Amino acid sequence: MHHLSRNGARFQIFAPNQQQMNVIDHMKKQPASGENRNMMIESARFSHGQGKMQMQDLSSLDANNFDAVIFPGGYGITKNLSSFMKDGKDFKLHSDVERVLKDFHRSRKPIGLASMSSVLACRALPSIEVTMGYERDENTRWGNWPNTNMVQTVKAMGARHHVREPYEAYVDEKNKVVSTPSFMWETDYHYHYIFDGIGNMVKHVMRLSTK
Amino acid sequence: MHHLSRNGARFQIFAPNQQQMNVIDHMKKQPASGENRNMMIESARFSHGQGKMQMQDLSSLDANNFDAVIFPGGYGITKNLSSFMKDGKDFKLHSDVERVLKDFHRSRKPIGLASMSSVLACRALPSIEVTMGYERDENTRWGNWPNTNMVQTVKAMGARHHVREPYEAYVDEKNKVVSTPSFMWETDYHYHYIFDGIGNMVKHVMRLSTK
Repeated sequence: MHHLSRNGARFQIFAPNQQQMNVIDHMKKQPASGENRNMMIESARFSHGQGKMQMQDLSSLDANNFDAVIFPGGYGITKNLSSFMKDGKDFKLHSDVERVLKDFHRSRKPIGLASMSSVLACRALPSIEVTMGYERDENTRWGNWPNTNMVQTVKAMGARHHVREPYEAYVDEKNKVVSTPSFMWETDYHYHYIFDGIGNMVKHVMRLSTK
Repeated sequence: MHHLSRNGARFQIFAPNQQQMNVIDHMKKQPASGENRNMMIESARFSHGQGKMQMQDLSSLDANNFDAVIFPGGYGITKNLSSFMKDGKDFKLHSDVERVLKDFHRSRKPIGLASMSSVLACRALPSIEVTMGYERDENTRWGNWPNTNMVQTVKAMGARHHVREPYEAYVDEKNKVVSTPSFMWETDYHYHYIFDGIGNMVKHVMRLSTK
């Protein structure tokens, strides 16, 4: 939101109006029992938009009304927007996610991907090129890469993967797909690397949307 | 977190290990019935820290272990960290909030305040100088100021208030208190003004912490 705002974009935020797979207790690092939450309501809590910025139902997103689409990351990708956590490499996409990705791609409108959301795009659009960061959890300064199994998954699905740092983005000019590792990288204190990577992704999405 | 990270700070995040006053449905803009949540667990969801960045219980925060303290904003200020929403100008502070503010002030360590959190500091430290933005909800470009009643409250409590823009911070050098309007300002698309105001606040807090 910060990068879109600073670069002068107008935007709307969408989430599925459905229940989440589960609710994580981030103190205990495990699912909380006996609780469920609605994705659209919880997303509205994060974005706290009002008026024009009111959270929208993903089922109402029409590619004809926008110049580009950006998928932020988060584990919801693997649980709510796809069945990755349950089904592994044979996972299926949420039907609205699949529809949106294919509609924007078919319309030659750019798609921005942060963190794990590249697995969504690689399922819907098998021949694209993306980065999800490093392919092995090598010793790197300031952080590590705990989810490299997802990189292997996108390669197995037919995508070409490019190794990039957290502060970089990879641009697939042909498909107008821009990706950045984001929180595929776990860091204690170097959040600004992730911030800069997302900034680069947003700027390329905006550049491609004016072509 | 972004500004602390980029400026090289090490930090820990704290929240009270207690139930919230209520849970807001941000789609309906009203409290959700029959639900309650723990502040520390919900804060951990936002910060998603792990390892050294694990969310801590506010009751364990000792001013001797830190160079400065920063209070982010949010309506929790008026419901969970104080009784402002219930009691208005006669509100009381959460006991740990009062203790932390007084300890850092007494130790001559800087206090950073974003958005509504200035009301907390002005209750504990009546003679400080702060900004919470505009004093009237005047017609301004890109946003508006819906909570100016809180500015009147801090003035009534004895604080001196300075009008500032969302992208600015006010520095009370004598008390080492740095404040920025942040989300006292409601905007549809100019989030980067708020981002810059918080950035200025963080930089002054870090400057004052090395004196």
